[in-house]
Amino acid sequence: MDRFKLIKNLKQPSDEKIVMLVLDGLGGLPKNGKTELEAANTPNLDSLAGDSDTGLMNPLLPGITPGSGPGHLSLFGYDPLEYIIGRGILSALGVKFPIQDGDFAARVNFATIDPEGRITDRRAGRIPDETNKKMCEKIREISIPGVEFFIETEKDHRAALILRGGQFSPEISETDPQKTGVPPHTVKPLDGSSTAQKTADLLNSFLKNVKTKLSSENPANMILLRGFSLFTKIPSFREIYGLNACAIAGYPMYRGLAKLVGMDVAEVESGVTPQFDKLKELWEKYNYYFVHIKYTDSFGEDGNFDKKVSAIEEVDKNIDRILNLNPDVFIVTTDHSTPAISKSHSWHPVPVLIHSRWSRKSNINEFGETQLLKGTLGIINSLDLMMLVMAHSGRLAKFGA
Amino acid sequence: MDRFKLIKNLKQPSDEKIVMLVLDGLGGLPKNGKTELEAANTPNLDSLAGDSDTGLMNPLLPGITPGSGPGHLSLFGYDPLEYIIGRGILSALGVKFPIQDGDFAARVNFATIDPEGRITDRRAGRIPDETNKKMCEKIREISIPGVEFFIETEKDHRAALILRGGQFSPEISETDPQKTGVPPHTVKPLDGSSTAQKTADLLNSFLKNVKTKLSSENPANMILLRGFSLFTKIPSFREIYGLNACAIAGYPMYRGLAKLVGMDVAEVESGVTPQFDKLKELWEKYNYYFVHIKYTDSFGEDGNFDKKVSAIEEVDKNIDRILNLNPDVFIVTTDHSTPAISKSHSWHPVPVLIHSRWSRKSNINEFGETQLLKGTLGIINSLDLMMLVMAHSGRLAKFGA
Repeated sequence: MDRFKLIKNLKQPSDEKIVMLVLDGLGGLPKNGKTELEAANTPNLDSLAGDSDTGLMNPLLPGITPGSGPGHLSLFGYDPLEYIIGRGILSALGVKFPIQDGDFAARVNFATIDPEGRITDRRAGRIPDETNKKMCEKIREISIPGVEFFIETEKDHRAALILRGGQFSPEISETDPQKTGVPPHTVKPLDGSSTAQKTADLLNSFLKNVKTKLSSENPANMILLRGFSLFTKIPSFREIYGLNACAIAGYPMYRGLAKLVGMDVAEVESGVTPQFDKLKELWEKYNYYFVHIKYTDSFGEDGNFDKKVSAIEEVDKNIDRILNLNPDVFIVTTDHSTPAISKSHSWHPVPVLIHSRWSRKSNINEFGETQLLKGTLGIINSLDLMMLVMAHSGRLAKFGA
Repeated sequence: MDRFKLIKNLKQPSDEKIVMLVLDGLGGLPKNGKTELEAANTPNLDSLAGDSDTGLMNPLLPGITPGSGPGHLSLFGYDPLEYIIGRGILSALGVKFPIQDGDFAARVNFATIDPEGRITDRRAGRIPDETNKKMCEKIREISIPGVEFFIETEKDHRAALILRGGQFSPEISETDPQKTGVPPHTVKPLDGSSTAQKTADLLNSFLKNVKTKLSSENPANMILLRGFSLFTKIPSFREIYGLNACAIAGYPMYRGLAKLVGMDVAEVESGVTPQFDKLKELWEKYNYYFVHIKYTDSFGEDGNFDKKVSAIEEVDKNIDRILNLNPDVFIVTTDHSTPAISKSHSWHPVPVLIHSRWSRKSNINEFGETQLLKGTLGIINSLDLMMLVMAHSGRLAKFGA
């Protein structure tokens, strides 16, 4: 019996409220003996940890570093090795495009090419959104025989392209050469299928039209395509867990991910204060809240150990604002590690804390990677987290007599 | 290669004797800072723990609370998500019915209905076994065209119904409405299969006959059916492990479970003294003993923290009676947690101790959930326990050259 069928069979109604606070990229590596989380002064999280189930989680498989998509899918209980969500789909979701089963999506970068067709700027000078919108309008004048297409402004030089109404394959190569001084690549099929060949032909013809259409523009006179992906509807959060879920996330990609699994998405600015305010404002409306804090990851990616520490401390200072709402189950965790010393996502197991009246108490006095090894959960997989969350909120009946 | 094939391929003969002592529902949650096991004064188990491999086990998947069936199957090394054993089958096994491959079983409750057919007592005043037997005899006078059926007294108002000689589907709804003042439900198919429809039709017609047959009886004038399940033979303990196994269990369900996996079942009263006496009496006859103590779970279910503590202490006081037999491998564990504070089974990882001359020594001085986190085994799955038991008893050859 697979995991979703098991949960569907066992799930039962409950009024209990769940808050899953995701501090993006929280996990770290030590600098001067302490990780970012350990270096941070977090009296509130430390004391909560001793009163909670705690441990570490492998975001995916040991050694596998997840992107934000797989990292979050796993937190939501969807096996990222089964539910492959391409970057194109995430872009489309991020711009709130009403994506449908069978849609094919790609990430678009507006770029600048010289008269010989060689790329001079892969981001077209990071054009303002307004210019981006105008270029999208021009491209919409093109038609692709037999296929409907949509191009939607994301931000700066980024947009999303969606194809609908045909058979498409993501097994094709990207056009962004990831460097300047050379022309964009043509799209090539990566397997022997006729679908990949047709998808490549269609996109090459479309790109030729785009080049002509934008030839008199400056600086955005070409587009680069990558992150090709096909959208297959995935079972919703409500369907699997029976939860009425809301995402409180400031960044488009995380809103897109939440939408993908069928969560409502709150309108909110990015930041601890506005996001925690929004949680309070919406407290009566939902029974599951995904609160996504971005800065911890951003500072990790920048290699800024101290600012990541400060971002963690800011959350800790405000954690009472969540606890005062008396969530029945409160989870603090993350989608992956982003050690400042590596300036990138990493595979290292991530901190997790589950606080409910059914928690065993961890014999630790600090919410940090070293002490969490002594936590009550041991090292689990993030894919297992949602089952624990369901259990802690009284939503899973006993399996078998 | 699946687990059973691996074990079958590697298993080798041995005279070593194994005792697996299962204290049902042993795992707990803290009240005033200590779980039931931690609150109990258990000097013998504490000292044994320091001299043993110890740890915690997930009975199933993290967050999934097992019933007694899945909990024990997992301890015996059978994946409960693969071997789904319904309550009806357990009832049939419990009354020692010689169940066969393809048999279909249900749990029967004798009930009382009023002249309008509404249930007034779901347990027919807990009729004595004698009355139960007489009612079963009357029902046996009914015939179901093309199908053989058996109805066997379990205890009080409970019986087991077995159908044989047809195609049956357990994907049908139960007739017990779980409340009084309404008539029993009719059986409805839960999927679109013709087998489910036929099974439902057959049972509805049978129930109509039962109602007529018992119409002049009082108080047991109707039956309620639930726990529909189909029996598929599962590989035996002897076949997989080569073990000559005996169950020393006082309660029918656990005897039934033991029988299901092909163990012999000793005749014994429930209780530490009679069960440990029986173990000694049968010591020369078998090489694996499953000793099942029920009270720890019962007191947990009752929410009686102190009595669960006492039940654990009683086992500890008598543990020398097992140790004096010099088992080569001695395991103390449980099928699931039953925290007194939740009055029900729970998903929390359970204590385990494996004592043999091949044990690593755990650096702990207490057999309790908190210290067991520091044990030599870490947190494993109960499904893995039997492989460790086989290894500790010298019954598994090296895999590969």
